Amino acid sequence: MTVEIISVGTEILMGNIVNTNAAFLSEQCVALGLSCFHQQVVGDNHDRLAEAFKLALGRADIVLVSGGLGPTEDDLTKETAAEVCGCKLIEHQPSMDALKAYFAKRNIPLTENNYKQAYMPEGGKVLENPNGTAPGVIIPYKADDTGDADKKAKKYIILMPGPPGEMKPMFLSSVRPFLKKHSPGTIYSVTVKETGIGESSAEELIKDLIDTQTNPTIATYAKTGEVHMRVSAMAQNKAEAKKLIAPVVKEIKKRFGKHVYTTDENVTLEEAVVKLLKKRGLTITFAESCTGGLLSGRVVGVPGVSDVYKTGFVTYSNKAKHKLLGVSKKTLKKYGAVSEECAYEMAFGAAKAAEADVAVAITEIAGPDGGTEEKPVGTVYIGCCVCGEAVVKRFNFSGNREKIRDNSVSAALRMLHAELV
Amino acid sequence: MTVEIISVGTEILMGNIVNTNAAFLSEQCVALGLSCFHQQVVGDNHDRLAEAFKLALGRADIVLVSGGLGPTEDDLTKETAAEVCGCKLIEHQPSMDALKAYFAKRNIPLTENNYKQAYMPEGGKVLENPNGTAPGVIIPYKADDTGDADKKAKKYIILMPGPPGEMKPMFLSSVRPFLKKHSPGTIYSVTVKETGIGESSAEELIKDLIDTQTNPTIATYAKTGEVHMRVSAMAQNKAEAKKLIAPVVKEIKKRFGKHVYTTDENVTLEEAVVKLLKKRGLTITFAESCTGGLLSGRVVGVPGVSDVYKTGFVTYSNKAKHKLLGVSKKTLKKYGAVSEECAYEMAFGAAKAAEADVAVAITEIAGPDGGTEEKPVGTVYIGCCVCGEAVVKRFNFSGNREKIRDNSVSAALRMLHAELV
Repeated sequence: MTVEIISVGTEILMGNIVNTNAAFLSEQCVALGLSCFHQQVVGDNHDRLAEAFKLALGRADIVLVSGGLGPTEDDLTKETAAEVCGCKLIEHQPSMDALKAYFAKRNIPLTENNYKQAYMPEGGKVLENPNGTAPGVIIPYKADDTGDADKKAKKYIILMPGPPGEMKPMFLSSVRPFLKKHSPGTIYSVTVKETGIGESSAEELIKDLIDTQTNPTIATYAKTGEVHMRVSAMAQNKAEAKKLIAPVVKEIKKRFGKHVYTTDENVTLEEAVVKLLKKRGLTITFAESCTGGLLSGRVVGVPGVSDVYKTGFVTYSNKAKHKLLGVSKKTLKKYGAVSEECAYEMAFGAAKAAEADVAVAITEIAGPDGGTEEKPVGTVYIGCCVCGEAVVKRFNFSGNREKIRDNSVSAALRMLHAELV
Repeated sequence: MTVEIISVGTEILMGNIVNTNAAFLSEQCVALGLSCFHQQVVGDNHDRLAEAFKLALGRADIVLVSGGLGPTEDDLTKETAAEVCGCKLIEHQPSMDALKAYFAKRNIPLTENNYKQAYMPEGGKVLENPNGTAPGVIIPYKADDTGDADKKAKKYIILMPGPPGEMKPMFLSSVRPFLKKHSPGTIYSVTVKETGIGESSAEELIKDLIDTQTNPTIATYAKTGEVHMRVSAMAQNKAEAKKLIAPVVKEIKKRFGKHVYTTDENVTLEEAVVKLLKKRGLTITFAESCTGGLLSGRVVGVPGVSDVYKTGFVTYSNKAKHKLLGVSKKTLKKYGAVSEECAYEMAFGAAKAAEADVAVAITEIAGPDGGTEEKPVGTVYIGCCVCGEAVVKRFNFSGNREKIRDNSVSAALRMLHAELV
């Protein structure tokens, strides 16, 4: 079963945005055991869209499309796909109701051009979009009458909205189950997620396993501060696939030890951390400087975090570090705010002020200004205090302000995980 | 002059890496005034590569290719491109010398398979790669003998290495100057960024301008809580292009009034907010609940924010709201933490606790639990206090926890901008 991915949008062709949708969809297809040999990007143009759909239908069984489902005149994806598949667009009442409800809830007037989002290709399966106004749709492709009758409607164009925040949930809840049914066997995957180890070191550690892989296969994905290893097996059924995977996962876990934080595809590092806190009955707080709340914000993204997290501090100025966390004026003067000593006092002070068992503090020079020869831009101190004992580590990151802040948040989560596990 | 971009690599098709090369190349082409209507991604496979090159040559004048120039057997880009263009591969002495020097410098033995990197299509223009072992090459495409003789060799396939750290410098030093010679003119763009207005309402407002556009053109981009309108003109030179753009930008600004927060492509909404604060000499603080620091983190991402931002609060629990911000126990008991009253007191309390002129407070039910009939998941109160006067607005967002939090942060920035402008 072959899949082809088409991303629609002038903003991709103009380089305004990076095509992360295609990477997400490709990764998901690999996990389902589906082959993907081509990706295309086209703009919101009728003729080029039609050409792209026909090309894809000629060489793939399923065409996954994202983008161009909006309410404006530019958005032609649905109209063109329906035309290529020989379907009329008809009003879809549930979508019309959802659209009206969406606007009513927000108290925004529903303009004429929005209505087109509720017209759907006849015979298509409409996919709900709880995160936006454009529903998705699975359109069966009717082969030519001259073709083999058996092959009729064996191909599909699947349309999803372009914004990743709408596309991804729709894919996972509606498209993935559909594709799974069309997978040649059962693919079962386990993702071993590791933190605190680089990609090349990680690959070296299991080079012998990768070199001899056939079924199961091992694919390595580098994420910021993490390495994910997906072990996938194809078999007649899930039980058999699981049996094939088990020894490989066991071996990987053995080799990576405490670096492994989960083998659950859906669990993030912050979720693993919150789970560890709950298990140990500990509460946590954060004290941040240049990251400005990003670390705290990521952890608060975990549902049910209220059991372990009550309050946190953004202490950007020296005065705030002194006033809210009790960092001594002497420390700030003698060592500066970006120092091992300050990180210690921030972590201890935050734990005390929040009456929390665990505290993580970040103090750093994120740039573009503020660097010195001794402490250049990218110098980061992270303090982690667990039940009255604290460790501080210094990191030296490169890149721009955004990159340094991202790396700091991810390093803090890694450190926290290592201290709790 | 039309360009098509082909990215070669199984790692892109498997979703292991995001295709940032295509975004970079597209953006560069737009800046050169070259049109790009298609991007393709293919794996390291002879037949599919040949098909991709032929397809691209059929619809574009210049085909920009990255990836597949390495020393391994997998790497077939150069061989296939030479074949499609009807060129032999011959030894290229300077490349062979550079290759030998590269390995000698690093004291690594030069293996047999590396030699193939020094064989180049006859008649091609070799591009140096100071950052790696694979040179690039510009290959002229000879049209069929049956074709128009004048059109011979008017097309090109340009090969560059895949790693961005090698491709980008090569593009900028060797490919860009080549493309510039083929550019029909200069493209100049101005992006008008708006907030507080939806995409469809925004388009309705300038429908007449969009309908009659030729040069300049207007492209609309929807971002979370924002609409960006890029006005682009092509002309002989930048000054002329600017002249074409000016009246359109002026008209858009007039119609959108205070919704416009910048006409600088590189300025974000948070930067515009920080600029307004600096201009008015005001300091700011934030008090967040379920957003957990995301709003604060976004604003702290602005370089130089320390002039206006000193400290912020994450008050997730009722106790923290009372203790850090002074929200009265009576309010928390009578109206609940997610209420207009609480948002007021949070905003006032944060301003006082941080000794700031401006405070923004968010209190919300982000889910998945905690919703009631009266206040379902997605109910958000945002309080904005400027110099002792506060407004509170209620929002009802839908979607998952992540989406509700994102929308809340963006709504808070919009409100803040509206209060300050």
